[in-house]
Formats: sequence, structure tokens, C-alpha cells
Amino acid sequence: MPLYIKSVENLINEFRKLPAIGPKSARRIVYYLLKLPPRHIDGFARSLIEMKEKVKFCSICCNLTEEDICHICRDSTKDQEKICVVEEVGNLIIIEKTGRYHGLYHVLGGLLSPIDNVGPDELRIPELVKRIREKGTKEVIIALNPTVEGESTAMYIKKLLVPLGVKATMLASGLPVGGDLEFADEITIGRAISDRRVI
Amino acid sequence: MPLYIKSVENLINEFRKLPAIGPKSARRIVYYLLKLPPRHIDGFARSLIEMKEKVKFCSICCNLTEEDICHICRDSTKDQEKICVVEEVGNLIIIEKTGRYHGLYHVLGGLLSPIDNVGPDELRIPELVKRIREKGTKEVIIALNPTVEGESTAMYIKKLLVPLGVKATMLASGLPVGGDLEFADEITIGRAISDRRVI
Repeated sequence: MPLYIKSVENLINEFRKLPAIGPKSARRIVYYLLKLPPRHIDGFARSLIEMKEKVKFCSICCNLTEEDICHICRDSTKDQEKICVVEEVGNLIIIEKTGRYHGLYHVLGGLLSPIDNVGPDELRIPELVKRIREKGTKEVIIALNPTVEGESTAMYIKKLLVPLGVKATMLASGLPVGGDLEFADEITIGRAISDRRVI
Repeated sequence: MPLYIKSVENLINEFRKLPAIGPKSARRIVYYLLKLPPRHIDGFARSLIEMKEKVKFCSICCNLTEEDICHICRDSTKDQEKICVVEEVGNLIIIEKTGRYHGLYHVLGGLLSPIDNVGPDELRIPELVKRIREKGTKEVIIALNPTVEGESTAMYIKKLLVPLGVKATMLASGLPVGGDLEFADEITIGRAISDRRVI
């Protein structure tokens, strides 16, 4: 006697594959969906298919786009001499939102991780070097997470940039604005001391 | 200049509507989906539509089923004189999994909540009373969560059962098996004392 219904279990399994969704959440989501009117589910399914059909990765920087080239790469008012290297499209959006950067981007699609067999060729590092060479980029801002993987990827890229004569910069590390010394970890405080600025 | 892409934002919004998914998780899920091969997305969309097309609620107990009547209501080996009242299908599955109950079920579809305008008619309480009357049920096990809403719903159902001469029982409250007195709250310990059993 089946305790579960196949089509329900199939969908629960689809949700379980997604990041940040555990088995309990997956089940809760599917029970929620079961109570919705059919047109809502159709809308959801349509959004999924539509996104996959319409959205591509920009052939230059790998940002999301519905065209061949994304709106940032097409924008001639952007500072063409700067490239900001990010791990994922989500990080690109976060930096654009600050309104403090007006150059181009390059989405790596991950970070170097020898344990997971992610080398430079798995990321878009060769494309970055080619792009810098061809376009005469002056500065590469490496905006990766301040983690072990992020910093070793940044160091790897920096080494490739030296022979190209390109200035490499990284995001500043330190205390978050509005943060509290008491809640910051020692490594962050240490970094904030070494990177202290003259006021 | 659009920072976001419409088809991507549409899908993020669909995920945000789901329970237990916040704006950051929704975005993370969609970026994850973007990296998958198209056939995976099609499979996901198909699972959604298939579930909605195939799965119905049992016309007797409101359990999930692909037939008119669910496999539990169709199972003549089940104890036909007992009905276990649960809030949601998820709770029914949990009780079935214990293997300690061999009767029928009745899924209410929620709990009484005057603040949210959920009265007895919004739940499947009239259907429960009708079912008990017609089938000559002997015992109703009220297996609702031990919360204020759960217990007031249980009390409401109990009152309806008195004139029908049906025995009403509730799940025992107390310390979880393998639990620790130190981590239990006072109300649970208090309940465990009043419901203490002779050994």
C-alpha cells in the first residue's frame, strides 16, 4: 500500500534538489502548492520554462541577459577601462545597486577550489585574460568574497595580471559600516588595523 | 537601464510566494536553476503540472490521492470504527509512519482561528460529524498540534462528539522520548506531571 503518491513525491524531490531547501521545507512547499488553484501552478511552471528559454549568459561578461550581449556591456557610458571580477551574477547586482562603480564586469561562475576539482579552466579566467589583452583594460577590481577560496582566486588572477601591466585592486576589508567592534571577529579587526586609512 | 531581467524576476517572485523561502533564498534558487541544463528545468515544470493534474483530495477524508477515494479509505483491513483527526496531510503521513495506528483519518485542512476568520465551516468539521453519524464511528482520536489553536479546535470537536456518544481521545502530551528534562519547557513538564502514568 503506497504511503506516498508518486507525482507528489516527484515534486518534493525536485524541490529538495534546490539550494537552501531541506526535506521538511520541500514537503511543506508541495502541500502549499496542492492547495492553490491550478492556474497558479500553471503560472509557476510557465515562469520556469520562460526563464530558461529567454535568459542567456552575456557572451562577453557572462552576466544574465535576454540578448546576446548584456545591457552593461552594451552601455557605452560605462568606463570601458575597468573590469570588476565577481563570482556570481548575484554579486554583480549587489555592486551595481551601490551605484559606486561605473565600469564593466566579468562573472567567473565560481571560485578556484582544488578539492572540488575547480581549476582556472572551469571558471572564466582564460576569457578574462583574453578580454583584458584585447580591450586594453587598465584596472581589474577583484570583488570576490573575503574567504579562503575567494582570496586564493584573487591572488591567482593577480599573478596573471602582472605581465599584462594591469592594475589589480580588491575590495577593502574591515568593519562593516554601522557595525560594532565588540561583534567583529579578530581577523576582521586585524585586517581593519593593517588597512587603516588616514583621516 | 534595467538592472534586472523580467523573466528572472518573475520566477524569483514565484519562489518568494512559497512558504519558508525568503527573498535571498529565492534569488539563490533561481541563479542555481539558470545554471542547470534545460531538460532539468523542463522536468521540474512537468512535475509541477503533473502533480496538479493528477492529485486530488479524497472525497471522504481529504487525504491526497490520484483516485476519487484514497488508499486508506479503500483499505478494508483498517479499523473502520476509529477516525484520527489531523490538521494537514503531512500529519497523516507522520502518524501512518509510526505504524501504531490502524484506523481511518479525517484531514481538517487547518485549525480554528477566529482572528484569521477560520470557523468550523472553513474546516471540514461538518463533514466529520456527518461521517461519524453515518458510519457509526466508536472513537475519534484528535491528533492536532498541542498549541492554543490545536487545543481549542480539539475542545470544539470534543463538544460536538458528546451528543453522538463517541469516545474522544487526544495524543498524550509530555516529554519527548529520548528528551532531557533540562531542555523541556515548564508547561510540557507540568503536563507530563498531570498526565503521569502508573508503571
